[in-house]
Amino acid sequence: MTSKKREKRPPRYGVLLTIAYDGTDFRGYQRQTPDLRTVQAVVEEALQDFDPTASALRAASRTDAGVHALAQKAAFTTERAIPPIAYLKELERRLPPDVAIREAESCVPNYAPRFDARYKIYHYRVRVGPTRDPLRDRYHYHLHGAHFRPGARSDECAIAAALNLEALEEAARLFVGRHDFRAFRDTGDRRENTIREMSRVAIQTDREYPDALRIIVEGDAFMKQMVRIMVGTLLEVAREKHPPSWISELLCADATRSDAGPTAPPEGLFLAHTELGRQAHEKAEKESRAEEEPVRAPEDGQQSEADA
Amino acid sequence: MTSKKREKRPPRYGVLLTIAYDGTDFRGYQRQTPDLRTVQAVVEEALQDFDPTASALRAASRTDAGVHALAQKAAFTTERAIPPIAYLKELERRLPPDVAIREAESCVPNYAPRFDARYKIYHYRVRVGPTRDPLRDRYHYHLHGAHFRPGARSDECAIAAALNLEALEEAARLFVGRHDFRAFRDTGDRRENTIREMSRVAIQTDREYPDALRIIVEGDAFMKQMVRIMVGTLLEVAREKHPPSWISELLCADATRSDAGPTAPPEGLFLAHTELGRQAHEKAEKESRAEEEPVRAPEDGQQSEADA
Repeated sequence: MTSKKREKRPPRYGVLLTIAYDGTDFRGYQRQTPDLRTVQAVVEEALQDFDPTASALRAASRTDAGVHALAQKAAFTTERAIPPIAYLKELERRLPPDVAIREAESCVPNYAPRFDARYKIYHYRVRVGPTRDPLRDRYHYHLHGAHFRPGARSDECAIAAALNLEALEEAARLFVGRHDFRAFRDTGDRRENTIREMSRVAIQTDREYPDALRIIVEGDAFMKQMVRIMVGTLLEVAREKHPPSWISELLCADATRSDAGPTAPPEGLFLAHTELGRQAHEKAEKESRAEEEPVRAPEDGQQSEADA
Repeated sequence: MTSKKREKRPPRYGVLLTIAYDGTDFRGYQRQTPDLRTVQAVVEEALQDFDPTASALRAASRTDAGVHALAQKAAFTTERAIPPIAYLKELERRLPPDVAIREAESCVPNYAPRFDARYKIYHYRVRVGPTRDPLRDRYHYHLHGAHFRPGARSDECAIAAALNLEALEEAARLFVGRHDFRAFRDTGDRRENTIREMSRVAIQTDREYPDALRIIVEGDAFMKQMVRIMVGTLLEVAREKHPPSWISELLCADATRSDAGPTAPPEGLFLAHTELGRQAHEKAEKESRAEEEPVRAPEDGQQSEADA
């Protein structure tokens, strides 16, 4: 930004995309080496085909290999004054069936969703049953006999019989609030601030499918594999390997990754919603008709870094 | 069966499988040329690997490319006295993620589910919305602006606003009963008896997803692409191209395929249930404790041939 050529730069525009993807056949969201199929690489390639002046994408979350998204947020900057709806339509035509743009809107040129996320909602889906289900296993963690609580039949097809749902719900509630989540992150995660605030961790059963449930996790920010370790730990309580109070013991500065439960597999995890400050701002503005303020990145990038 | 070697044959056993598959990456159920990936070929290959004496599969339905099944029924004959649960487990290990054995049970050696189907239930899922949805489009027919009824907004996300559901329900009810379905079959289908009886054709909306619905079709037997042509025709009524009474006009011996609506695409179609005579028989037997009679194929194979 201190370049002498600054004055010669063309005007720049920002576009914010809402991206949905089936993560099964992706090696995660973030671009890696050129031969790995990632969501970022696939969307950027389609974007370059339509608008070679478009920048790289700046996303809200770096979802892992196999993790799905209903609403990933990613922004880019362009020199072209193209209406966002045109990006929606042109990308729709160029993207493969497992990734789609659900919305496109204008934003400030260097907008970085990662530093503007107020909170995120993840869903984790679990199914029980003695056999595989090819129509649901792309989107559910399949638990069978060996994963059930003691005394449950190994051919059980009702989640309330296979798992202790009362204990699971009690354990889930203990995550709510501001805690030290250092035991709930991948050992490769080295960031210093491990305090996070969860506003909701809840269990939802499904009326149509008595063999399935959904764990909803809503929080301000997440560390690497944090939701999957939370789920893997909760499921240890549901199969009565530990009491619900185990969660409280793990939410302290002395606990380490090896104290918590296993990392649940990626296929059950969905990034369901990302609430951006600009959206909260726009909602408030619509109500108060106040003047809009520019979006700014917080000083400490670590605080809102996203790696669930 | 008139061979002189008949006495030398080893004893033979029947096994009946319930197979579920995601049809997206299959070229239909039925085995074709060796290089085409079909459900039958994939299951038979896994079966041969475990039991080389197993016969070819005899299935209840020949689902088309892209069509899914929650409960396809297929039987085979073997010379080995292996408990059915062992077939379940050994096939589970050998099959790819998009096909699974949900049940395995004993049956008479030459049992042919195709000639013993009492009725079948198909589900067809439809979704509306302005953009693709990578997490649901494998299993839904996606309708967008051009498919909506006149006056509906092209960015509509509520199925009750995009389609005329009252007209759709009225039209669906007109299919119920015994009718001539000759207008509702692929032009390549040449069988003479085109009379079929539908016991239920109904519309179900989804509580969780207001942008989707499900058409349930339950009938005694189906012809090639029959359900998909029924759905394509119903959707013409839902978008107000024809009144519901159009269905009654099409259910007569003078109507032809070109009078009906388009063939809806395969991705929304699920073979949800196949009720076999043996199952109905077993239910009755459990209640009455009557003696079991052998399962027999009906004389007219055409009557219960299955090609939805």
